[in-house]
Amino acid sequence: MLEELEELSSYGADAEGGVTRLLYTDPWLQAQRVVISKMQQLGLEANFDAVGNVFGTLPGSQPETKPILTGSHIDTVKNGGKYDGAFGVVASMMALGYLKAAYGTPKRTLEAVSFCEEEGSRFPLAYWGSGHVTGTRSLLLATEIADQDGVTLLEAMRQAGFDATANGQPYPAKREFIGGYIEIHIEQGSILTYKKKQIGIVTAIVGQIRLTVQVSGSSNHAGTTPMRMRKDALAGAAEMVAITEQMALEAGEPLVATVGRLEVKRGTSNVVPGEVEFTLDIRHTDEPEMRTFCVRLLTKLEEIALRRGLTIETVQNLHASPVAMQEGLSNAIEAACEAAGIQNMRLPSGAGHDAQLFGPLCPSAMIFVPSVGGISHSPEEFTEAADLIAGFHTLVHVLHQYGYGGKADERL
Amino acid sequence: MLEELEELSSYGADAEGGVTRLLYTDPWLQAQRVVISKMQQLGLEANFDAVGNVFGTLPGSQPETKPILTGSHIDTVKNGGKYDGAFGVVASMMALGYLKAAYGTPKRTLEAVSFCEEEGSRFPLAYWGSGHVTGTRSLLLATEIADQDGVTLLEAMRQAGFDATANGQPYPAKREFIGGYIEIHIEQGSILTYKKKQIGIVTAIVGQIRLTVQVSGSSNHAGTTPMRMRKDALAGAAEMVAITEQMALEAGEPLVATVGRLEVKRGTSNVVPGEVEFTLDIRHTDEPEMRTFCVRLLTKLEEIALRRGLTIETVQNLHASPVAMQEGLSNAIEAACEAAGIQNMRLPSGAGHDAQLFGPLCPSAMIFVPSVGGISHSPEEFTEAADLIAGFHTLVHVLHQYGYGGKADERL
Repeated sequence: MLEELEELSSYGADAEGGVTRLLYTDPWLQAQRVVISKMQQLGLEANFDAVGNVFGTLPGSQPETKPILTGSHIDTVKNGGKYDGAFGVVASMMALGYLKAAYGTPKRTLEAVSFCEEEGSRFPLAYWGSGHVTGTRSLLLATEIADQDGVTLLEAMRQAGFDATANGQPYPAKREFIGGYIEIHIEQGSILTYKKKQIGIVTAIVGQIRLTVQVSGSSNHAGTTPMRMRKDALAGAAEMVAITEQMALEAGEPLVATVGRLEVKRGTSNVVPGEVEFTLDIRHTDEPEMRTFCVRLLTKLEEIALRRGLTIETVQNLHASPVAMQEGLSNAIEAACEAAGIQNMRLPSGAGHDAQLFGPLCPSAMIFVPSVGGISHSPEEFTEAADLIAGFHTLVHVLHQYGYGGKADERL
Repeated sequence: MLEELEELSSYGADAEGGVTRLLYTDPWLQAQRVVISKMQQLGLEANFDAVGNVFGTLPGSQPETKPILTGSHIDTVKNGGKYDGAFGVVASMMALGYLKAAYGTPKRTLEAVSFCEEEGSRFPLAYWGSGHVTGTRSLLLATEIADQDGVTLLEAMRQAGFDATANGQPYPAKREFIGGYIEIHIEQGSILTYKKKQIGIVTAIVGQIRLTVQVSGSSNHAGTTPMRMRKDALAGAAEMVAITEQMALEAGEPLVATVGRLEVKRGTSNVVPGEVEFTLDIRHTDEPEMRTFCVRLLTKLEEIALRRGLTIETVQNLHASPVAMQEGLSNAIEAACEAAGIQNMRLPSGAGHDAQLFGPLCPSAMIFVPSVGGISHSPEEFTEAADLIAGFHTLVHVLHQYGYGGKADERL
């Protein structure tokens, strides 16, 4: 498995030592073709779907039982790492290959999937792959959205050989008959390392509210304007950043609130700033708590602005609800860890994943393996081999149960 | 005088309704030539000096008495206003013209001066005009410094007709025999308006310390990094901005401290910021107090960084000492105001002026007139006609005293 991961990372290997596989580019196409050929070598029925997702099927003996999908995404961010997405793709197909070799035909059909796109790195949209499979994305967007070079998503699809009918109808990529979805992925955080666990079982994928806040005051001469006569937009914004951090700390985990971008408009060392813009990113596994925090925070920001004679304007750019993972699948993952003596814990996912599109449609679960230093989206992204293997072992165990074992006859 | 000011603003009038007269450009040269011709019409002996300053002399009958210089600068910032610098130039030459017409030859020689440069808008240096007259600037810099287009200061001088000998010797622009310097200028702040005064008498030009502060933490995923595991450089910088404002408010006037520029490196809404750079601009009329404040503030910033697991690096970009204006000249200005029933007050200048180069060499003073809304360096820069006239009246009165009256025989 480690060798396959290494080989996959050669497709899209970039000059900076990372991996860049953007949707529908040549390295991307090569990687998906390699995935198909590996799946076939492992004895799976493998092919592209209409938009470029790759499915590798291990057909079961009970076709009336809904299949379980397992996989992740093949695309990367620009100059990303070897593990994000790719580990889930490789682990999934090899798990099915191993199960077929060891146990033959399963009762329930198992399918490994390599989604064409999740990161949103080339086009300004994400989940293009799992979005099609779950019916939450359609080709209607493909003519409207273009990459940095002005190539539309539809043109890019066609260039990669995915020639859509493009008559405005949803593309026939949606899958109706799915029993469950299990995804193994790197944590992209430091909690597992900090808690000394090899496996994380995801309780929920956090919801997210993204806002842009514009603070306006008066731009003034830094030498001639006494402190008490200022309407300093940056001093106000600094107080807002501080209260955001303080309220997030008080609210406690799993809430996080981040000001990631802050810009002083026309900022010069000798001018009192008149205008500042910053972003707010608020995440929580619980929708009402996320909303309540957001309202309380914005009220505080308004108070700060009012007290300082500043004005603020807020624009909401995103509101995604949290998605819970299924208890049954999660318990099975935990049992598999316990049986093998693998240290594990439950934790929320602060990042988005393909699993969040499946969560509302079918039982879904995620297995996390530790990220050294919490680093991801970087050539330095790394997970210890022992942890990758523990994750793989857990995935195989759970798929065996649902494909061949006691849970193979469970209605999902 | 108002007409002359209006006419002068036509040289360098820009599309945005402001005035742009950068050192040694055509509009600048036209304006200085107009100043010479007006001075000559007013009966002054007028000409350029070697670097492009214009002097208009009203020779006195006692050549052994050191002359008094009065004036300001002809250059502007990009898209500046009609009053900054220009008002002082126009008021000074017209004051001398008026005195000559009304009182004839003075005892003490009086000179109106239009400095070639003060703003630092074209080349990265300021006080090129008064710096030469006071001997604090030399041509040694002129070959090393270039404008945005790569034109060196020396080339620009030559193109404007000021052909230096350029053999590494200081240019013969330094004046050795000066009795005093009086400058009238717009306040560029709101204190006079706020205090309902027509005239401000400058006590001192503030000293200034400029620093750049670099805050480094850890760049991390905004979703997967719990609040307590962050080393957020922006949250730390925000606390530093807040403490700067708080300590400056506590220190009280005339101290001001400003964070004018703050930049989040590679700032993105979904990433915890790893690196932030901001500027600090600290001003005070008292050198020891300015230094003490600066040391106390930097100690606080270090404490904040240490507590948060961040590191900071500080670079000092400027340290200019405060320059006191002379008590005798300032008292004479006050007496002139009182005699005419003009509401006046003492105040420090938070901005830099040509007078700060004369302060250490000879008795120097500044007269401020109010800036509506405190606005300067903008086409919206404005001073009420009544206030311009009050300032002019005061200047004439003081120059009369030192040129013709009771103070004409005073040793300066």
